[in-house]
Amino acid sequence: MARTISVIGLEKIGLVKPGDDVALLILDSLKSEGQELMDGDVVVVSQKIVSKADGLLVDISSIKPSRRAISISKRTKKDPRLVELILRDSRKVLRADPQAVIVERKHGFVCLNAGVDKSNVRGRTVYSRLPEDSDESAKELRIHIEKMSGRRIAVIVADTYSRPFRVGQVEFAIGISGIEPIVDYRGQEDLFGYELRYKFVALADEVAAAAELVMGQGTEQVPVAIVRGLTRLVRNESEGSSRKLLLGRRRDLFSKIL
Amino acid sequence: MARTISVIGLEKIGLVKPGDDVALLILDSLKSEGQELMDGDVVVVSQKIVSKADGLLVDISSIKPSRRAISISKRTKKDPRLVELILRDSRKVLRADPQAVIVERKHGFVCLNAGVDKSNVRGRTVYSRLPEDSDESAKELRIHIEKMSGRRIAVIVADTYSRPFRVGQVEFAIGISGIEPIVDYRGQEDLFGYELRYKFVALADEVAAAAELVMGQGTEQVPVAIVRGLTRLVRNESEGSSRKLLLGRRRDLFSKIL
Repeated sequence: MARTISVIGLEKIGLVKPGDDVALLILDSLKSEGQELMDGDVVVVSQKIVSKADGLLVDISSIKPSRRAISISKRTKKDPRLVELILRDSRKVLRADPQAVIVERKHGFVCLNAGVDKSNVRGRTVYSRLPEDSDESAKELRIHIEKMSGRRIAVIVADTYSRPFRVGQVEFAIGISGIEPIVDYRGQEDLFGYELRYKFVALADEVAAAAELVMGQGTEQVPVAIVRGLTRLVRNESEGSSRKLLLGRRRDLFSKIL
Repeated sequence: MARTISVIGLEKIGLVKPGDDVALLILDSLKSEGQELMDGDVVVVSQKIVSKADGLLVDISSIKPSRRAISISKRTKKDPRLVELILRDSRKVLRADPQAVIVERKHGFVCLNAGVDKSNVRGRTVYSRLPEDSDESAKELRIHIEKMSGRRIAVIVADTYSRPFRVGQVEFAIGISGIEPIVDYRGQEDLFGYELRYKFVALADEVAAAAELVMGQGTEQVPVAIVRGLTRLVRNESEGSSRKLLLGRRRDLFSKIL
């Protein structure tokens, strides 16, 4: 038999507001489609609805920009209040000019605009921030869904990011609970008995990317996908953490060549 | 109804040898599992079996390394004959030391060891090279499969690569035929009528990543996956090309910050 994985988009979540119970929205949406969660499902949730439910929406009209934000806003031609919001979520500014603001967030995650984002947020001056600790958000959601459904599952909080070398954005796993983010084949033998020396797969990012194939039409209309068929990998080892996917500059083979 | 995508791994391809007809192997494998191709399927094929079928296996014991290869082999502690093979597939060496050899291939694709690889290749001194033009390989395979099956499909040749900033490897689309590699949402409106300014998704890489979820156990045992459910995107525009996914250094927002 062919080994098959299904990626199921949940289209009936509706608009998410601060304080909403995302676990309940997911289970209700499944139910209304005549489906239910199964043991071993990976529930992939768009960062945007996690941020909305957690109230991580900021109206920048209430922000007073610092002197540093004003200075950077001049270089970047961005609203100084938006720059201030980005700076508050940044540990280090790596680039700031009219083309791009790239920062390192707490824990070392490097991304554009610190993940502060306008899309699918109501209000001309309202932006969404990333969760403080996306792993914690994933864990809370996992425990809540498991309690209500009685199923053992994993949760991945996913968001869309640009990457070096390649055109276009892909979905990355920025919060993980219940699945190991990496599958390590090193030390195993290949077909002809040679030891695999390099194979070390970023499973959680691939799951997030697969989920995007059904979420892609505007993540808010399909903000959740169930990835079914990875049962073997779900809830069988440690809790998992998105930080395991972050490569420090010193370990990064591509450092200094780009 | 939930929108669903299926990723079906083909486990009965068997070992691929130079001269093998990969299209036939795929259709036979599907048949033996009681399945068949459908219009709109994306057939994702591991680069390794494309290279094998195309005879792109090189026994480095037959190679006489150039002076440059010998010099680089001293810096990298790699076999000078292997370095010579890597150099033959490189336009520019970006890094060469004991940790890594990173090159730019023809058409600008940047990767470790020029994609020259030992895994799942028989013979202690035999390595596989990437196809000269993976888009052409994908196109030939697509046309051949379409003729035999009567279905309109897309083909993606996928391979496993390390990437900057993040731990672990993911599958990239290195050869594409019959599907646009990028889905551009820019200019469309979001939920609240704001124009999406950045959303520009690397669909073909996400399809390759999804395929890896069933191919992951050693690509040779499951060297092909069918991604079903993207019908809308298959064979409806241009031919598609993996080169559209390559970002020159000048356009790369992450240039110089890594």
